[in-house]
Amino acid sequence: MISTTAKINLLKKPTQDSWIEQAIANLDLILLDHSHCERKAAGAAINFMFRYPSHAPLVRKLTAIAQEELEHFELVNQWLDRRGIPLAPLNPPPYGSTLKAQVRPQEPHRLLDSLLMTALIEARSHERLGLLGEHCPDPELAKFYRSLMASEARHYGIYWVLADTYFDRDLVQQRLDELATVESEILSTLHPEPRIHS
Amino acid sequence: MISTTAKINLLKKPTQDSWIEQAIANLDLILLDHSHCERKAAGAAINFMFRYPSHAPLVRKLTAIAQEELEHFELVNQWLDRRGIPLAPLNPPPYGSTLKAQVRPQEPHRLLDSLLMTALIEARSHERLGLLGEHCPDPELAKFYRSLMASEARHYGIYWVLADTYFDRDLVQQRLDELATVESEILSTLHPEPRIHS
Ligand SMILES: [Fe+2]
Ligand SMILES: [Fe+2]
Ligand SMILES: [Fe+2]
Ligand SMILES: [Fe+2]
Repeated sequence: MISTTAKINLLKKPTQDSWIEQAIANLDLILLDHSHCERKAAGAAINFMFRYPSHAPLVRKLTAIAQEELEHFELVNQWLDRRGIPLAPLNPPPYGSTLKAQVRPQEPHRLLDSLLMTALIEARSHERLGLLGEHCPDPELAKFYRSLMASEARHYGIYWVLADTYFDRDLVQQRLDELATVESEILSTLHPEPRIHS
Repeated sequence: MISTTAKINLLKKPTQDSWIEQAIANLDLILLDHSHCERKAAGAAINFMFRYPSHAPLVRKLTAIAQEELEHFELVNQWLDRRGIPLAPLNPPPYGSTLKAQVRPQEPHRLLDSLLMTALIEARSHERLGLLGEHCPDPELAKFYRSLMASEARHYGIYWVLADTYFDRDLVQQRLDELATVESEILSTLHPEPRIHS
C-alpha cells in the first residue's frame, strides 16, 4: 500500500493563497464547476474500464471509484439545487487539456501516464476541497467539503497503486516526478475564471 | 408515470426459444457478455450526462441509473470470478451498432432517438435476464438474474419517462414504434455468437 509520505509528496507545490481568495469570492461558480469535476471524474474512471477491459485490478478498483464519484456528483447537484444554481455548461480551465497533452499516445506509456495524470488531478482536488473545507464562510458547505476529503484521498492513492501494479516502481516515480512538475507549473499562474483547478 | 401496459408494449416481439437454448448452452460466455453490457449501460447513462449537462431531470435520473449499472457490473464480475472466467474483450453482436445507426444525428432528434433506443435495449435486457432467471439450470445464478429484474424494469421506464419529459407524447410513441420494429427485426435472426443481445 502507498505510504502516507508518498501520498503527501504527490504534488510538487501547494496551492497559492490567490486561488482560495478567488474561490471564496465565487462560491456558486466553484460549486457549479465542482459538479462538472465530479461527473468528469466518474467519466474518467469508466473510460479506463472501457480501454482496459481485461485489466481486472483496474476494472474492479475503478468501478468503486466511479460509484463514489457519482455519489459526489449527486451531492454537489443537491447543493446547487439548494442554492438555486441551475445546471449549466462551463468553460473548463486549461488545466485538464494541458495535462492530457502530456499523455504519450503509445501503450504502455499511455496507461502509465493516464493513471498518474488522474492521480495528480485527484490529489489536487483533494488539496483544494480541503482548503474550501477550511476557509469556506458557510459552515454547512465547509462541512460538506470536509466530508468529501477521505474518499478523494483514497482515490489518488488507488490511481497510484494501479500505476504501481502495472509498472516498475522506479519508472512510476520518475514519470510521476515529471508530470507533477508540469501540474504545479500549470497552476503557478491563476486562471482568471474561478474553477476548482483555476 | 409510465403505465404498466406501456412498459409491456415497448417490445414488438418476444425473444425466440432459439436464443434461450443458445444462452443456456453457453452460460459462461453469456456471463462475460453480460459484464460488458453492464459497463456499457453505465457508460451510456454517463454519456447522456456529458452531452446534455443542463438537462436537470435527465442528469439526476441518469446519475442513479449509472450507479445501479455499476453495481450490476461489479456483481456480474464477482460471478465471473466465482466461475473462474477471466475478464476479456468480446466482439459485440450487430444489435448495438445497428440500433445506433437509427439515431438521427441532428438535435433534437438525436436526444429523442437515443433515449428511445436506450429504453429498448434496457427493455430487451430486462426480458432476457428474466428468461435466464426462469431457465438457467444453476439455481444460484438463476436467482441472481431474477434479482436484477426490478432495476432493469425501472431503467427502461425512466428512459421512456425522459423521452416523455422532453418531447410530445405522440412524437415519442410514433418514433418508439419505428425503433421497436427495427429492434425486433434485428433479433429475428439469431446471431451465431452467444450474447445477451444475439
Ligand atoms: Fe469525487
Ligand atoms: Fe475522486
Ligand atoms: Fe444493469
Ligand atoms: Fe439497466
